[in-house]
Amino acid sequence: MASADQAAQHSKGPGGKASPGTAQIGVTGLAVMGRNLARNLARNGYATAVHNRTAARTRALVEEFGDEGTFVPSESAEDFVASLERPRRIIVMVKAGDPTDAVIREFAPLLEPGDIIVDAGNAHFADTRRREKELRERGIHFVGTGVSGGEEGALHGPSIMPGGSAESYRALAPMLEAIAAKADDGSPCVAHIGPDGAGHFVKMVHNGIEYADMQLIAESYDLLRHACDLPPERIAEVFRGWNQGRLDSYLIEITAQVLAHTDAETGKPFVDVVLDQAEQKGTGRWTVQTALDLGVPVSGIAEAVFARSVSGHADLREAARGLPGPTPTLLDSAAYDRFADDVEQALYASKIVAYAQGFHQIAAGSAEYGWDVDQGRVAAIWRAGCIIRAAFLDRIRAAFDARGDLPTLLIDEHFSEALQGAQSAWRRVVSTAAELGIPTPGFAAALAYYDSLRAQRLPAALIQGQRDYFGAHTYRRADRPGTFHTLWATESREEVTPS
Amino acid sequence: MASADQAAQHSKGPGGKASPGTAQIGVTGLAVMGRNLARNLARNGYATAVHNRTAARTRALVEEFGDEGTFVPSESAEDFVASLERPRRIIVMVKAGDPTDAVIREFAPLLEPGDIIVDAGNAHFADTRRREKELRERGIHFVGTGVSGGEEGALHGPSIMPGGSAESYRALAPMLEAIAAKADDGSPCVAHIGPDGAGHFVKMVHNGIEYADMQLIAESYDLLRHACDLPPERIAEVFRGWNQGRLDSYLIEITAQVLAHTDAETGKPFVDVVLDQAEQKGTGRWTVQTALDLGVPVSGIAEAVFARSVSGHADLREAARGLPGPTPTLLDSAAYDRFADDVEQALYASKIVAYAQGFHQIAAGSAEYGWDVDQGRVAAIWRAGCIIRAAFLDRIRAAFDARGDLPTLLIDEHFSEALQGAQSAWRRVVSTAAELGIPTPGFAAALAYYDSLRAQRLPAALIQGQRDYFGAHTYRRADRPGTFHTLWATESREEVTPS
Repeated sequence: MASADQAAQHSKGPGGKASPGTAQIGVTGLAVMGRNLARNLARNGYATAVHNRTAARTRALVEEFGDEGTFVPSESAEDFVASLERPRRIIVMVKAGDPTDAVIREFAPLLEPGDIIVDAGNAHFADTRRREKELRERGIHFVGTGVSGGEEGALHGPSIMPGGSAESYRALAPMLEAIAAKADDGSPCVAHIGPDGAGHFVKMVHNGIEYADMQLIAESYDLLRHACDLPPERIAEVFRGWNQGRLDSYLIEITAQVLAHTDAETGKPFVDVVLDQAEQKGTGRWTVQTALDLGVPVSGIAEAVFARSVSGHADLREAARGLPGPTPTLLDSAAYDRFADDVEQALYASKIVAYAQGFHQIAAGSAEYGWDVDQGRVAAIWRAGCIIRAAFLDRIRAAFDARGDLPTLLIDEHFSEALQGAQSAWRRVVSTAAELGIPTPGFAAALAYYDSLRAQRLPAALIQGQRDYFGAHTYRRADRPGTFHTLWATESREEVTPS
Repeated sequence: MASADQAAQHSKGPGGKASPGTAQIGVTGLAVMGRNLARNLARNGYATAVHNRTAARTRALVEEFGDEGTFVPSESAEDFVASLERPRRIIVMVKAGDPTDAVIREFAPLLEPGDIIVDAGNAHFADTRRREKELRERGIHFVGTGVSGGEEGALHGPSIMPGGSAESYRALAPMLEAIAAKADDGSPCVAHIGPDGAGHFVKMVHNGIEYADMQLIAESYDLLRHACDLPPERIAEVFRGWNQGRLDSYLIEITAQVLAHTDAETGKPFVDVVLDQAEQKGTGRWTVQTALDLGVPVSGIAEAVFARSVSGHADLREAARGLPGPTPTLLDSAAYDRFADDVEQALYASKIVAYAQGFHQIAAGSAEYGWDVDQGRVAAIWRAGCIIRAAFLDRIRAAFDARGDLPTLLIDEHFSEALQGAQSAWRRVVSTAAELGIPTPGFAAALAYYDSLRAQRLPAALIQGQRDYFGAHTYRRADRPGTFHTLWATESREEVTPS
């Protein structure tokens, strides 16, 4: 613990005037994420200006952590800005939405052309695009930046996804590289994603993928739990085993820990005392809404968002609990072992699909907004620091590094081989879940997506026929170009409108 | 065919000054939908003012159809407005979006307090809310109105879903009731849905349900087609059979016709020459995006939107076509008959789920915006005229008439019995499709939703544990109130924050 004296060593303490231009970077908004980012910067040797709307938090930070590095605290926005060297680098870590606009309104008039505002909150990328444009017109760089890894990540090394101008990235890169998580090969988990809202877009999709990944893990647990009378602790062992293989990841690791945890109060498995109503923040929803705008099918992510939503409708569930369904037959222990292997295959295959959908969305967003996002680079900076960090992401990096314009991860050699190996088990799991009455919306959606993509013909042709029938929406033919309409009401003559 | 002379009988013909205040209602925007609505009004005895941005269309309408009733054509907006009796009733039928705003900007200054603008296009309900508010402040009623039934419906009787004020509805009701479709019991398929955007909201959800219904039908066809080597004509027979039973509906009827249709050019089944890339307009997408905002799980509708989207990604499909999968084993004819029965059950059960999700969304929208929508009334006016018209909707009407606050259609006695009867077959179909490699995203999503709702416990509890682990998001307990956080990194002590 740092004393106030130690803190004063590094700064003139809150309340006084900050020495002008000594801090290399500043953080405003010192709730836990902002505080930890500031500490991470200071620990890495950067003189870090700190500021918060209520000064008590600034004081507390310097008092508690002042010995970790050089903090330059200010109570007013003016002093905070004055305490920064030029070009000023200001990380804003406040609640997304109106609070971010309020901070920008407060700080922008105090800044000069070339200065940089970094929004490290979870903003919607469309807001980031708007803000970036407004500030660019005033000569100020606005860098919407995704930061993943939670509180611990912010302190010890998050995965960082900055958008904004290439020029601003050059001014930030050394600091961001210093505080970012490091992948196994030592490279920092930060890269310039692309202009304006690219960083927040990619962070949004990261979170959408996170929703899907968590849902698939939850379905795996649910299947293992209900197909056999095993306690969560035994299922934790299964997850620990999986974590030694290709599923090795932070989410699998913490799943094992959550499942192994016993509630101190009741002595019951922790997972059995938690209310089974999952909550959500906006990013999962935004991912699906944006995907719909872009015409990208992200069914795995959507089912994950819907699954949380279903779980939270307590009244509806209460009303529907009496609906008929099969009672799952319990498997014996030999069958259970086989089933657990099948579930691992289904989880891996469904996970490939969820990531393929997410990367498809990134490619589509990049094309739509002209961001030129390097998908291999995105996978690379997700290898450590963020919630979905996993060995798996190095495979994805390799897939995109080998072919930057890969239309879908599913056809990368490594992943298509994995899908080939996994698919019989995957089909058995989806089929068994349907028969046993265990809901697997994520597994089933992933399999349907896979089978849709590889289909020679889809029944979309029938849908086009229906649409032409009731709405004269016209259709195209498989055998030659043009747009056609059938006069259904009369003798079904064809009216041809070659395009 | 009406001659120009006949047209002149009923009006003073385009080009001249319209007689002031003689027309009871007006239609501006005379593309096929607007033209047919105007004809429908005139055929029902209403003197109908007609106007179009380019006067040629107005002239053509009067020339071609002038003998169907009294048309009062105008070339200018001023003449058009002057030709209407007070309060003026103006139906706008132009493209949704900017064109609608342009028409409002043109007409609003010409109107007086108490006059009524009816937007009969497919506007987003949020736009309708905005427009209604702006015009209300000027004393003008704005009635965003859903109209379903396509061109034929507009002419012979659509299903009509008006929002806006109760006062404006009273002024419109006789005319709308006259032109609307009539249900089997003779009641007109129009009702005041609720204030401001309620009508367009309900029309949006209607279209979302339509997407889901069409997708489920498409999956049924696809299963029957690939499980046995039957030609589409034989499958058309199956659909004709279904249309005699509980699936009796317009969409099933036209599906049989589309499947039975032979392409004149090649002699092949029509469905085999159509390009299998389904297109979409905005309403399916809007339904899902809005449902996400409202926290309503509409997985059946979402999968239908995504299925169209997948079908349209030609490059992706081309790249993925080589992915491995099973070759469906063909069923012999006895097994096929059993399978066809199973598919009927799966289709009916999945359809119940899709409608339950749609009505859940209507209830949620109504609660969110204070519309007080009568769901039974909505079902009643969908019984005829619209694309999803079906015997089934009278069952839904009965369910909501029996209990207005029914939390979900699934628990209505009729539907829960149907689900009980159908579910073994439903599970067999989803399971078989997974094993055979035939994509059934709609069936599978519907079944997963059903099993999720009836589950005693959902693995959402595990998700809450994960979220608390990596993000300190806290959780609630099943056994007592309060909000809790586990200190995972240390000795897993519990930090309790009773709420």
